[in-house]
Amino acid sequence: LQTKLPKVGTTIFTVMSQLAAEHGAVNLGQGFPDFAVPKRLVDELARAMQAGHNQYAAMTGIPALRQAIATKTQRVYGHRADADSEITVTSGATEAIFNAIAAVVRPGEEVIVLDPCYDSYEPAIDLAGARAVHVPLDPRTFAPDWQCVRDAITPRTRMLMINSPHNPSGAMLSADDMRTVADLLRGSDIFLLSDEVYEHIVFDGARHESALRYPELRERAFVVSSFGKTYHCTGWKVGYCIAPPVLSAEFRKVHQYNVFCTFNPAQHAFAAMLDAEPEHYEQLGAFYQAKRDRFREQLLGTQLKPLPVPGGYFQLVDYSAVSDLDDLAFCRWLTTDKGVAAIPLSPFYETPPAGQRLARLCFAKNEATLDAAIERLQKL
Amino acid sequence: LQTKLPKVGTTIFTVMSQLAAEHGAVNLGQGFPDFAVPKRLVDELARAMQAGHNQYAAMTGIPALRQAIATKTQRVYGHRADADSEITVTSGATEAIFNAIAAVVRPGEEVIVLDPCYDSYEPAIDLAGARAVHVPLDPRTFAPDWQCVRDAITPRTRMLMINSPHNPSGAMLSADDMRTVADLLRGSDIFLLSDEVYEHIVFDGARHESALRYPELRERAFVVSSFGKTYHCTGWKVGYCIAPPVLSAEFRKVHQYNVFCTFNPAQHAFAAMLDAEPEHYEQLGAFYQAKRDRFREQLLGTQLKPLPVPGGYFQLVDYSAVSDLDDLAFCRWLTTDKGVAAIPLSPFYETPPAGQRLARLCFAKNEATLDAAIERLQKL
Ligand SMILES: CSCCC(=O)C(=O)O
Ligand SMILES: CSCCC(=O)C(=O)O
Repeated sequence: LQTKLPKVGTTIFTVMSQLAAEHGAVNLGQGFPDFAVPKRLVDELARAMQAGHNQYAAMTGIPALRQAIATKTQRVYGHRADADSEITVTSGATEAIFNAIAAVVRPGEEVIVLDPCYDSYEPAIDLAGARAVHVPLDPRTFAPDWQCVRDAITPRTRMLMINSPHNPSGAMLSADDMRTVADLLRGSDIFLLSDEVYEHIVFDGARHESALRYPELRERAFVVSSFGKTYHCTGWKVGYCIAPPVLSAEFRKVHQYNVFCTFNPAQHAFAAMLDAEPEHYEQLGAFYQAKRDRFREQLLGTQLKPLPVPGGYFQLVDYSAVSDLDDLAFCRWLTTDKGVAAIPLSPFYETPPAGQRLARLCFAKNEATLDAAIERLQKL
Repeated sequence: LQTKLPKVGTTIFTVMSQLAAEHGAVNLGQGFPDFAVPKRLVDELARAMQAGHNQYAAMTGIPALRQAIATKTQRVYGHRADADSEITVTSGATEAIFNAIAAVVRPGEEVIVLDPCYDSYEPAIDLAGARAVHVPLDPRTFAPDWQCVRDAITPRTRMLMINSPHNPSGAMLSADDMRTVADLLRGSDIFLLSDEVYEHIVFDGARHESALRYPELRERAFVVSSFGKTYHCTGWKVGYCIAPPVLSAEFRKVHQYNVFCTFNPAQHAFAAMLDAEPEHYEQLGAFYQAKRDRFREQLLGTQLKPLPVPGGYFQLVDYSAVSDLDDLAFCRWLTTDKGVAAIPLSPFYETPPAGQRLARLCFAKNEATLDAAIERLQKL
């Protein structure tokens, strides 16, 4: 059988989680919290099942949830997306990214991605018969070089994908960046896919520059977010996509025939939670900032050098004082021999920068978990 | 914006459910039960959330659920699919169908579908850059004419899709049919996609001829099923795909980057339920047969003529004694003017048979619901 996705193996997140389990390593690899989902959410989901919300949900998402998302976008970004024509609930942000690409990217076209980037982007582009054009971010700051992006645009460019706060680095796009993106795309028919799954996890008083804040951007954008990241339930697989009506219509054609609709009881739970406790997402940055600060403080007692973390729940560390292994080998060794699972950066790249010695640690963990990891990392 | 799916509108199931809601019609349209999910399943799901199974599930599905599915296939079909290499849990059967097509069908190839067929098949084929080749089933018996299928095969044929028990007709493929399919495909590199979501809803002592029973078929097949149909929870969106290791590997590449994994707590609930209560699926045929028989009996008091229903939970009725409207107009009128929502068959066809006067009624409903519908249908 000749494969349609020759470059795809098992995702690094699964590989490292399995290796962590086999070796009893503290798992700071795959990005998921090890603390509890808010009790209200669990209770609301159970209540929704009891109330009988167990059959197909509306294909686009239940109205109450789409309204609650609209209210949130108004509250947070000063722009109210239209619940009926612009918001679609999906089975996780990954499905939303897949659908957006499948909906508008055609065979032979190009999609610009900024490396390092999440590993689902390119296979989705490949399946659309298109080609990912990789533009590297700065290997230390993870800032985009917009001139390089401009140079990568061709008549075949159909989409630009951005991600802020950025996985794996935590780097954030500034208002200036967003205005530059607007300049870049103005007058073109290039769509923007803005992956904002860490939108509420931002630190030090910074503001998340959602594409929704920028009229020129949102008119051509698919803005993707995730309840899994915001509500500590990555395994519930509920996300959403906000796009103008014409783009949402195309997006929904794919969603309708891809998964049709998303787990119904969870939609009721998120609708109730969003309306009842906006503090949850408003305080999420502070919640994670405390974890970040404590973890960084602890890392000072190790030979790993932490890079700045403006947002998200990952800490990049430079391990060159410990080892000269490449990052795949280092993360494997760290997991199997030292008992701490981490994620290498090279799988996020088409061409990893030569000699980069960075690993990603997830700090969305209980203090006890982070303490256990630090104890091991001190012995490197 | 030039659409990639020019033929796609809102699916007929959503259209008719919305119309039913607007007009207070008894909804026998979209296929979903209006009775409760087994209490054990709801309790197990709640327990799984409490136990903290709220983060990413294994990409392929949690081991306990894949094992439970393997045990079920052994028990029911005398063939044990391998839990690790052959079974993948998906976010509903629709996702499984989409993935299977995306995984192996290439641009320029052809997929043979038997009309009438479920409306997600063709858009999934279109998105793969391939072409659906429609071979009609017999317009009264819904039996395949295998000679016509044979004639439709070309060097570009990559896949044949079959569906038994059949939606919308309830027709079932016989052991003879399955042997003929094996003859047809022998020596070719054509894959089989066997949509078996109603596998446990079969009547009158008939046996469901799963592709899993036939070594020559299962070695080239993606066999798709749905917990939503079997456990009265269409809105939970959990299904699965069974395919040989080489095909499962390709299937998983798509699944991994489409939705990555499926709602975790429900996987624990289904695993527990399958193991603890095999009677549920073993007795599902009898459960629905009682509904079918009662409903058909009641239909004798109306002018609608019921067709035979060997399996599934849909009753086709010939309405030609009531109206000469085409089926779209009839179902619309039945919903808005007569208060009973039904599904027309033409959306399941590329070319609906001229003069066909059939509508589909879902009998996966409480007796009170069916009684209310019958009361209205008696007045036609
Ligand atoms: C789908 S597993 C990957 C989870 C995640 O977002 C990450 O670890 O980067
Ligand atoms: C996804 S809505 C369609 C449900 C169904 O299987 C049917 O009504 O045929």
